[in-house]
Amino acid sequence: MKKTIYSTPQDAEAAFYDALQRADLDAMMEVWSDDEEVSCIHPDGPRISGLEQVRKNWAQIFMSGQRLQVELSDQLIVSGVMYSLHSLQENILVLAGQGGGGRSIVVTTNVYLHSAGGWRMVLHHASHAPAPAVRRDAPLDAPKVLH
Amino acid sequence: MKKTIYSTPQDAEAAFYDALQRADLDAMMEVWSDDEEVSCIHPDGPRISGLEQVRKNWAQIFMSGQRLQVELSDQLIVSGVMYSLHSLQENILVLAGQGGGGRSIVVTTNVYLHSAGGWRMVLHHASHAPAPAVRRDAPLDAPKVLH
Repeated sequence: MKKTIYSTPQDAEAAFYDALQRADLDAMMEVWSDDEEVSCIHPDGPRISGLEQVRKNWAQIFMSGQRLQVELSDQLIVSGVMYSLHSLQENILVLAGQGGGGRSIVVTTNVYLHSAGGWRMVLHHASHAPAPAVRRDAPLDAPKVLH
Repeated sequence: MKKTIYSTPQDAEAAFYDALQRADLDAMMEVWSDDEEVSCIHPDGPRISGLEQVRKNWAQIFMSGQRLQVELSDQLIVSGVMYSLHSLQENILVLAGQGGGGRSIVVTTNVYLHSAGGWRMVLHHASHAPAPAVRRDAPLDAPKVLH
């Protein structure tokens, strides 16, 4: 049973990154929907779907001892009454554990849906991006090949 | 002015992959929303946002001469009246151009919204994944570190 009601998608997103940085599994799983099929994709990773698999995956990550500081930027939100689609950049510093001291830039899609219990995450899709990750006005002289 | 009305998100998705495989820029851009801020992220790429930048990017990709065959699998759809969130696996064979003959597995999030003109894509987020990309029942003995 969820205890927290996130009254906005932004509240759910803040709780997600707070839980991620604190490596708090219970707080992380509060954010995820248990009404809908959920999916989670980490950089270079497979899709993990289903609430139980998502929980196991976060448990494993948090148990690894890796600790991250995540600063968000370049947020772009498209939302309606029942959905909120967030595209953003995660500027990550690895504080401890594997890759300690390293920095990375990740471009992320987070999707939240509204339910009786407030806003919940249904999808987190993160992938590594070159710096700078957001290139609204980027020159087109370096062809980007699809795959 | 859009000419095609996609009456279901599945129709829009079929048109997206058809345009991609035929490297048809006009057909590709028919699929994208011009009502909302759109974003497109290719594997290992930055976020490209805004319809004009998305168009330029697809133009560049199609002009590169790379031709792809894409088979979709593992589709997982979460949808409401106004939104449709698709998570799927693209099984790609490079038919021509850079990386010709190569295969890759890409895990993709596509988001469609309903508008007066039918269903349109607002987000395509694709990232490389290890094979198999979809690991619903994957063993957890190989720790996946977050970043």
